[in-house]
Amino acid sequence: MVVGNQLNGIQYQLNGSQLNATVLGGAGLIMFILRRRVRPFVTMPTGECKLVILVRTDLNMTKGKAAAQCCHAVLETYKQATRNYPEMVQRWEDLGQPKITLKVESDAELGELVSKARKAGLAAQAIRDAGRTQLIPGTRTVAAIGPGPAKMIDIITGHLKLY
Amino acid sequence: MVVGNQLNGIQYQLNGSQLNATVLGGAGLIMFILRRRVRPFVTMPTGECKLVILVRTDLNMTKGKAAAQCCHAVLETYKQATRNYPEMVQRWEDLGQPKITLKVESDAELGELVSKARKAGLAAQAIRDAGRTQLIPGTRTVAAIGPGPAKMIDIITGHLKLY
Repeated sequence: MVVGNQLNGIQYQLNGSQLNATVLGGAGLIMFILRRRVRPFVTMPTGECKLVILVRTDLNMTKGKAAAQCCHAVLETYKQATRNYPEMVQRWEDLGQPKITLKVESDAELGELVSKARKAGLAAQAIRDAGRTQLIPGTRTVAAIGPGPAKMIDIITGHLKLY
Repeated sequence: MVVGNQLNGIQYQLNGSQLNATVLGGAGLIMFILRRRVRPFVTMPTGECKLVILVRTDLNMTKGKAAAQCCHAVLETYKQATRNYPEMVQRWEDLGQPKITLKVESDAELGELVSKARKAGLAAQAIRDAGRTQLIPGTRTVAAIGPGPAKMIDIITGHLKLY
C-alpha cells in the first residue's frame, strides 16, 4: 500500500510498513529521508491470542522432521512479533502460549496464507528447508502465523483442519 | 553448590547461579548484598552447536500435538539460552539453527536427561501439558536441550534414536 500526502512542508509516503518523508526547506531544496518503522494494522490485544503452524502434508515429512520445521517457524515469528508487538506476545504468554498445528496441502496454499497474514499485519514466516536430509533444498515446508489476535488469524486459517 | 570465602575484605558465597557478596567496611560494619548472575559451566562455543528435542513416544500423541509441544519447549530453552549464553545462541543461528527431534520412552527418562543437561550447565526445559485435549493435566510431554555445544549434548543424548 502506498499513500502519498503533504503536510506542513513535509511530503510523505507510506509504503507497506515503511514511512518515507521528504522535508522541503527554504533557501533551497533540503531533502532527507526519514525512515521509521510504522506499526501495521494489528492493534492492542483484548481477546484471545494464538499462534498457528501450517504444515504441508504433500511432502510426507516424517513427524520428527515436521516438528523440527515447526520449531524453526515458531522461533521466527516469535522474534518478529516480539519486535513489533511486545504487548501481544506478553498477552499470548500470559494465556499459556496457545499453538495449533494445521494442515495445508501445497506450496501454493502455504504461500498464499502467509501472504494474507502479512497483509493483515500479522507476524508470519514460511520456512525453507536446507535440504540436508529428506527434501530438495529450498522447499517450503511449514509456516507460522502469530502470535496474534485469534479472530484475525481465524479469518485467514479458520477453514484448515488440524494436523 | 555453596562455596564460601573471603578476599580483600569481601566475604562471598556462590549458591547455585547466584553470587552473594558481603563487604566489611572500616568505621563500622557496612554491608550490602551484591547479586549477580554467574554463568555456569558452558564456555564459549567454537565447534558445532545444536538443539535437541526429546519426545515421549509412550503417550501416543498425535503428530500435531507433539509438534506444538516441541515448539513450546524450544521457545523456553531459546529464551533461557539467550539470557545466559547469547554468543552461543548467535553461533547456533549462524549455523542454521540445527534442531534434532529424538525419542524417549518414559517420563522418567525425560526427567533424567533434563536433569543431566542442567547439571552440565545447558539450557533445558521439559514441558507439562495443560491437559485441555489429549492428556492428563500436568503430563510431561517433551523437552528441549540447547542450543549448546553439540559435543556436550551428544554425551547426554547421543544414544537416542530419531523421532
